[in-house]
Amino acid sequence: MLGAIEAGGTKFVCAVSNRSLEIQDRVSIPTTTPEETLEKVFSFFDQYELEAMGIGSFGPIDVNKASSTYGYITTTPKTAWKNTDFLGQMKNRYNIPIGWTTDVNAAALGELEKGAAKGKSSCVYLTVGTGIGGGAVVNGEPLEGFGHPEMGHVLVRMHPDDDFEGICPYHKNCLEGLASGPALEKRYGEKAQNLTNKQNVWEIQAYYLAQALMNYTLILSPERIILGGGVMKQQHLFPLIRKEFNSLMKGYVNTPDLDEYIVSPGLGDDAGITGSLILALNELD
Amino acid sequence: MLGAIEAGGTKFVCAVSNRSLEIQDRVSIPTTTPEETLEKVFSFFDQYELEAMGIGSFGPIDVNKASSTYGYITTTPKTAWKNTDFLGQMKNRYNIPIGWTTDVNAAALGELEKGAAKGKSSCVYLTVGTGIGGGAVVNGEPLEGFGHPEMGHVLVRMHPDDDFEGICPYHKNCLEGLASGPALEKRYGEKAQNLTNKQNVWEIQAYYLAQALMNYTLILSPERIILGGGVMKQQHLFPLIRKEFNSLMKGYVNTPDLDEYIVSPGLGDDAGITGSLILALNELD
Ligand SMILES: Nc1ncnc2c1ncn2[C@@H]1O[C@H](COP(=O)(O)OP(=O)(O)O)[C@@H](O)[C@H]1O
Ligand SMILES: Nc1ncnc2c1ncn2[C@@H]1O[C@H](COP(=O)(O)OP(=O)(O)O)[C@@H](O)[C@H]1O
Ligand SMILES: [Zn+2]
Ligand SMILES: [Zn+2]
Repeated sequence: MLGAIEAGGTKFVCAVSNRSLEIQDRVSIPTTTPEETLEKVFSFFDQYELEAMGIGSFGPIDVNKASSTYGYITTTPKTAWKNTDFLGQMKNRYNIPIGWTTDVNAAALGELEKGAAKGKSSCVYLTVGTGIGGGAVVNGEPLEGFGHPEMGHVLVRMHPDDDFEGICPYHKNCLEGLASGPALEKRYGEKAQNLTNKQNVWEIQAYYLAQALMNYTLILSPERIILGGGVMKQQHLFPLIRKEFNSLMKGYVNTPDLDEYIVSPGLGDDAGITGSLILALNELD
Repeated sequence: MLGAIEAGGTKFVCAVSNRSLEIQDRVSIPTTTPEETLEKVFSFFDQYELEAMGIGSFGPIDVNKASSTYGYITTTPKTAWKNTDFLGQMKNRYNIPIGWTTDVNAAALGELEKGAAKGKSSCVYLTVGTGIGGGAVVNGEPLEGFGHPEMGHVLVRMHPDDDFEGICPYHKNCLEGLASGPALEKRYGEKAQNLTNKQNVWEIQAYYLAQALMNYTLILSPERIILGGGVMKQQHLFPLIRKEFNSLMKGYVNTPDLDEYIVSPGLGDDAGITGSLILALNELD
């Protein structure tokens, strides 16, 4: 059996599957302290005979195998989890191979194997929710280098009608600081889900997201860009983003048809756990 | 023997080497028309018994193996070369495996194997010259997806002291439009090499390049960023770029020490031809 954890800031989804990735059992555990949460994680997995495991974790995390803190959740704003040796504790408990990457890299992998990027060898997965986080797959592998991508914090140009200062604690008006759910709420004094009919809100939002997508395209040249997370529930954002993307890119690079290029997740909320199961499977190759 | 071409807009460098990448012979051929240039390329390689070849080409080029124009130079501003089946003509002449990527991807590969990123598995190579072009290696492989990176055209925020409109024919004030050699020349009325002592010029230049490097870092997380090309002969730009990078990034992601992270090419002008020889070698694996 394969085990997988999609470790999010709000909840941990744990699942087990066979090698065909058919999920046999799953559980959702609230993210409280490492002690409390991991105890419940252990109780779940202890029931099964696991061959390998995959973890897609919230972060920032250390993915650098040469580093002494490889496998740690590092400088996260969730203070109880700062400097937690998450992978090490899992390895101590289960002496099996464990794949390890970010939650959004795992989601990108899931979408590539079974979702909106099926049959491709590269994609970007961006979640626009409480924060903005991005992961990618290149040549079939989760994208990592010195560390992992943090695509939500790219710098964008201000929209001429927007003078919001931004809420990113590091960069103020980076993409996350301007276009995350809480940024919309702060700027307009209402939850993002209540702004649906305010056309100007979404034109500005599309302008920021399209700039980020242009940069991802110019730098990574992925075959698909998948946009998930709460804010992207506003489906009317997709055509606005495609239009802005076109008017920014001015035809400079070839992309797939934009209706196929900039898309919703094919796996809905299961991208991350699916990708984490694939990480487990890849450990067995 | 291995053959390699670094195909640039001004000149083609052709070389042959043994499998240890020791160059045995090389020649430089002006880039005129495809007929004229390729005839001289053929004369050079016809002298040797080649096992495999590698080409790092100016572009844009088609690197998508599923495409009917794979191996073509496509929408290049050098009109004589538009829609030229460069790879096809080489394959017709020499019935051997031929590796094919962009000039800057080849340079990144050369720097990774033998230059400033030796021992790493990822790097970005950016040339700041007549244009601004970037390539990358991820997991030891040149970065490609639907197409190839065009990192020189990322969007940047305008410096408050700069109201230059930019010269990119597509985007006006993208990075290339603001920070290439000809952009400097147009803005200040003097060739970039004559602006050495104008402190304000280089502070603005560093601001633009640092934004691009921040985006590359957030999106790709490379282990090294190598900056080459004519404009980077201004060595004093390096500390300015590192300083701007720090003040933009605000410590949000871990990088190697910036003195080791943002560096000059280790191979000087030989990065591209070296990388193209490695492409040839990789065809034999
Ligand atoms: N239908 C919606 N339209 C716009 N924004 C939404 C919608 N649903 C949720 N959001 C916003 O998305 C954010 C939550 O993102 P979500 O992806 O659901 O969770 P998280 O990022 O915490 O995993 C909140 O800021 C919320 O206001
Ligand atoms: N020492 C220098 N300082 C600043 N700019 C330079 C210097 N040398 C060349 N350049 C500029 O670099 C550009 C040429 O770039 P280069 O990399 O040499 O060629 P190319 O990009 O055509 O291959 C020109 O715009 C030139 O003004
Ligand atoms: Zn930020
Ligand atoms: Zn441009």
